[in-house]
Amino acid sequence: MFVTFEGLDGSGKTTQAALLRARLAAEGESVVATREPGGTELGERIRDLVLHGGHVAPWAEALLYAASRAQHVEEVIRPALERGASVVCDRYVDSSVAYQGGARGLGMNRVLELNLAAVGGLMPHRTFLLVFDPAAVRTRLGSDHDRIEREDVDFYARVAAAYRELADRFSKRIVVLDGARPAHELAEEVYGALREGS
Amino acid sequence: MFVTFEGLDGSGKTTQAALLRARLAAEGESVVATREPGGTELGERIRDLVLHGGHVAPWAEALLYAASRAQHVEEVIRPALERGASVVCDRYVDSSVAYQGGARGLGMNRVLELNLAAVGGLMPHRTFLLVFDPAAVRTRLGSDHDRIEREDVDFYARVAAAYRELADRFSKRIVVLDGARPAHELAEEVYGALREGS
Repeated sequence: MFVTFEGLDGSGKTTQAALLRARLAAEGESVVATREPGGTELGERIRDLVLHGGHVAPWAEALLYAASRAQHVEEVIRPALERGASVVCDRYVDSSVAYQGGARGLGMNRVLELNLAAVGGLMPHRTFLLVFDPAAVRTRLGSDHDRIEREDVDFYARVAAAYRELADRFSKRIVVLDGARPAHELAEEVYGALREGS
Repeated sequence: MFVTFEGLDGSGKTTQAALLRARLAAEGESVVATREPGGTELGERIRDLVLHGGHVAPWAEALLYAASRAQHVEEVIRPALERGASVVCDRYVDSSVAYQGGARGLGMNRVLELNLAAVGGLMPHRTFLLVFDPAAVRTRLGSDHDRIEREDVDFYARVAAAYRELADRFSKRIVVLDGARPAHELAEEVYGALREGS
C-alpha cells in the first residue's frame, strides 16, 4: 500500500502522515514513512538547493524536485513496496503538478508527464488532500519561513486551485479532507478510508 | 550566435571552445564562454552533486542536468544572446541526449523532449561534434577521473554511437570533426564553418 498526503504547508498533512504511520505500525504492519523533497541523502541535498539557495528558475525548480523524486523512488519507495511494506509519503508527484505545473504556470500536464517519467509510472494507491482557506496560510505557518513559504497569498490560492483540479481528475485516488477539522477526527477518517479501500 | 561543442571527455572540445572564444574576442566580438554542467552558482552545486556524490539514479541524473541547464539558459545564455553577444558553450542538450538518453538507455527522444522543455526550445545555431575512437578515452583522460569518467569503454562506445545518430538527424546544425587532428587545424575548420554559415 502506497499512501501520500498532499496540501499546502500548514494543512496538517505532516501530522496526519505521522499519525497514520504510528497506527499502522502499532498494528504490526511494516511501514516506511518518508517525505519529499528529500527522503534520500541526494534528495536532502537537492532540498537544500531549492529551498535555501538564491533565485531558482521555474523549470530548474520543477526538474530538481523531479530528480529528487526519481532517486527517492529507486532508493526508498520501490524497494519498500517490493518487500511488502506500506509507504506513507508526505508530498509526491501531485505537489509538483500543483506548485510548479499549476501555480508557477509551467503547465500541469507537462509537469505530470515529466514526473511520470521520473518515477517510472509509480503512483500512490491512495492520496489524502488536506484543504483549508489559502488566506489562512500565514497564520498557520507562523514565522519559520523558507523560500517557498514566503510566496504571497495569490500563489497559495493558485496551488489550492490546482490541487482541486487534480482531485476532480483523479477522483478515485484522491480523497479530499477538510484540514480545519481536529487532527484526531481526520486521522479516523484517513484510517477508515484505507481499510475500506483495501 | 550560439555555438556548442560536444564529444566524449578528452575529445578536445574544451580546448576548441577556448580557442574559438579567444579568436572571436580578438576580433572585438562580445563573447560569453560557458560550460555544462555548471555555468551558474546553482549549476555548479548541481554539478558537484552529480559528479562527486554516491549512487545517482539514471533519471535523477538526467533531471539534475536538465535543471542545471534550465538555470543556465535563464541566467546566462538567453540574456547574453539578447544583448547581442555570442555564446560558446562546452556541452549542452546533445550531451544529455547522448549520455543519459542513449548510453544509459533512458531513450533519446524522451531526454530530448525533457530538455527542450527545460531550455524553452532554445537550441544552438551550430554545434561541433569532436569524434575519436572511444577505446582511446582512458589514454586521453589520464588519471583525473570523476564518477562519470570511470565508466567502461562500452559506455563510451554507446555515447559515441548516440552522438553519431544525433549528427545524422540534425545534420544542418551539427558539424562532425575528427578529434584526432591537431588542435590548430580543427580551430581553423571551426572558424571557417562559422564564417561560412553566418
